[in-house]
Amino acid sequence: MLNFSFCSPTHFEFGKGTEKETGALIARFGGKKILLHYGGGSIKKSGLYDRVTASLRESGLAFVELGGVVPNPESGLVYKGIELCRKENVDFVLAVGGGSAIDSAKAIAAGAVYDGDFWDFFEGKTIEKALPIGVILTLAAAGSEGSSNSVVTNEKTNEKRGCYGEVIRPLFSILNPELTQTLPHYQTAAGATDIMVHVIERYFSNTKEVEITDRLCEAVLKTMIYETPRVLENPDNYEARANIMWAGMVAHNNLCGVGREQDWASHGMEHELSSFYGATHGAGLAVICPAWMKFVSRVNPAKFIQFAVRVWNCQMNFEHPEITVRDGIEQFENFLRKIGMPSSIKEFGAKEEDIPKLARHIGRVSESEKNFGGYVKLNLSDVEEIYRLAL
Amino acid sequence: MLNFSFCSPTHFEFGKGTEKETGALIARFGGKKILLHYGGGSIKKSGLYDRVTASLRESGLAFVELGGVVPNPESGLVYKGIELCRKENVDFVLAVGGGSAIDSAKAIAAGAVYDGDFWDFFEGKTIEKALPIGVILTLAAAGSEGSSNSVVTNEKTNEKRGCYGEVIRPLFSILNPELTQTLPHYQTAAGATDIMVHVIERYFSNTKEVEITDRLCEAVLKTMIYETPRVLENPDNYEARANIMWAGMVAHNNLCGVGREQDWASHGMEHELSSFYGATHGAGLAVICPAWMKFVSRVNPAKFIQFAVRVWNCQMNFEHPEITVRDGIEQFENFLRKIGMPSSIKEFGAKEEDIPKLARHIGRVSESEKNFGGYVKLNLSDVEEIYRLAL
Repeated sequence: MLNFSFCSPTHFEFGKGTEKETGALIARFGGKKILLHYGGGSIKKSGLYDRVTASLRESGLAFVELGGVVPNPESGLVYKGIELCRKENVDFVLAVGGGSAIDSAKAIAAGAVYDGDFWDFFEGKTIEKALPIGVILTLAAAGSEGSSNSVVTNEKTNEKRGCYGEVIRPLFSILNPELTQTLPHYQTAAGATDIMVHVIERYFSNTKEVEITDRLCEAVLKTMIYETPRVLENPDNYEARANIMWAGMVAHNNLCGVGREQDWASHGMEHELSSFYGATHGAGLAVICPAWMKFVSRVNPAKFIQFAVRVWNCQMNFEHPEITVRDGIEQFENFLRKIGMPSSIKEFGAKEEDIPKLARHIGRVSESEKNFGGYVKLNLSDVEEIYRLAL
Repeated sequence: MLNFSFCSPTHFEFGKGTEKETGALIARFGGKKILLHYGGGSIKKSGLYDRVTASLRESGLAFVELGGVVPNPESGLVYKGIELCRKENVDFVLAVGGGSAIDSAKAIAAGAVYDGDFWDFFEGKTIEKALPIGVILTLAAAGSEGSSNSVVTNEKTNEKRGCYGEVIRPLFSILNPELTQTLPHYQTAAGATDIMVHVIERYFSNTKEVEITDRLCEAVLKTMIYETPRVLENPDNYEARANIMWAGMVAHNNLCGVGREQDWASHGMEHELSSFYGATHGAGLAVICPAWMKFVSRVNPAKFIQFAVRVWNCQMNFEHPEITVRDGIEQFENFLRKIGMPSSIKEFGAKEEDIPKLARHIGRVSESEKNFGGYVKLNLSDVEEIYRLAL
């Protein structure tokens, strides 16, 4: 196990009706003037907007609002949010929505108290301070409710980039599984895939003897394998929604990843699918991650045997472990098909001739050296081959 | 899943050599005058004392010290610590040791800024404030390094009591598995048992459909089943020590227990064994917990089948699930024997005629009503029967 630091200080309020505590929580954390940040109109249709604003008023909190966050949130709205925060002397940012609203809110919170261009943070500058952030989660997927990460797209350059900083970790997150019950089938399944891949990118590690984190990863994956089909069959299944929602947090607050090397190659490759074709992040991962598995398991099969046996209950083939490896990946692919996820990047509109452009656009991949990813280090032609395996 | 709040804000610094960061961490959290609180002489013999005090001096921190914490820490030393903190204007309490040193430090931290008798907190009074607390852990067992609980014994009345409060949760905990490598076999095994029972008291719940927390519980248990014999065979196995140490934190920061009823009956019954016979807490649990299982599984076998199949890989007997139940408990008992834990309360000096006294001394158990525990509610004669099963 590698040395590590771990701190996950977010306060979680989990369960039915918990959005009513929004105002009290913000007041407890010292907020007085709130930016209420959200996506489209769904929170108005569902009545959530009314309940949240009522809670803010009850606690005597003033607020301004900025809707319009789109999936794969864009820098344009972040600039608007920053301007609004400054103009209105906002001292607390409340995101209501899924990962996109939260990530956009994190970027606004950091940018509002920074003199330069907020995009600097997405080019590697350290985030020194940010307005405090609270979350009401409406989609179990990104894990942004318990993480210190944000991913934003620069819509002018088609760059989808991430940044990191302890100061953009939410102070509190309200997780009410009821709020996810109206989600369409596709969004629920894509969210579940995102959760699973957050674990997978931590699970496939060259760090040996990390039994506790391996077992925690497997716990989340097995939960998702059991609960996802149940929730797709019956979208009102509160218990299944609840298990998925909490699993989504555990998958990404790094409890499953501490003390080990991690590999975020699938996320890196997927971001290009979102940027170029507008793929839903989880759906993009559903195609890229198994393709990545096929490529890297040829080079480094060890952990894939464990994945097959422990996660998918595949029978171990002691004589031909490569068959066990294949069985595990197949089971994962079958699961993704069963929950309605796509199986080819063509379904997003990608063509074979796009592949060199996609691979180059990642930007961080070397032509000669193998410098991308972790479990197996990849170069540009490896990445192109993975995209081809995903066709 | 039941509604819940969860917040685990402790900063963990995990790995080799991390005790050198003590001074810097305390300074970061604003401490200036430290109470260094520890047990016997072992931290001096091992050189840990020198490294820690050097780190404090390097960061320009003043300190006073109070050693002498005994297993099942006693109120007498807590009073001394409180007096010392007041006299010396201590503003930060640093515990170096296992659960006893940490729990004693928590009681001192709360008592030092309280006008009344600190024992009030152990009789149910809410802890409103406390001095900030840091931890250097030397024994993987109690989970107190990441919890907001403390257990202290009033040596005059033989009462072993617990208290709870967010303000006594450590601000940071330094977890260096190397520091546990010199522990005797018995202490290591008793610690491992304590970790496992922390999970078990959460696992056996009547709350249905808590798949994610069930799976997380199973992850910790399976880790302990794998790593404990490895570390007993080779006490210098750093990797096994590391996995156990982190599992011990995960077992008790309540991540494995949120959203469900919990049952702390085994802990309640064990406390009497520690109070009356000086039993090592984990060793007491190793006897009481299987006895508790035998009793309650007769009444409520459901979860025991899952325990047998998922945790112990028992073959499911579909025709006679009660055999599967028995197999699971037997496997647990065999494991405890294998790691050198006792199998009868007689080994602590208990006699059959002591049992009524032990059961009554718990204090919270009703003669007529079943009001003790959770998975199965117990009355006084049930508790007596469990003690008898542990003979």
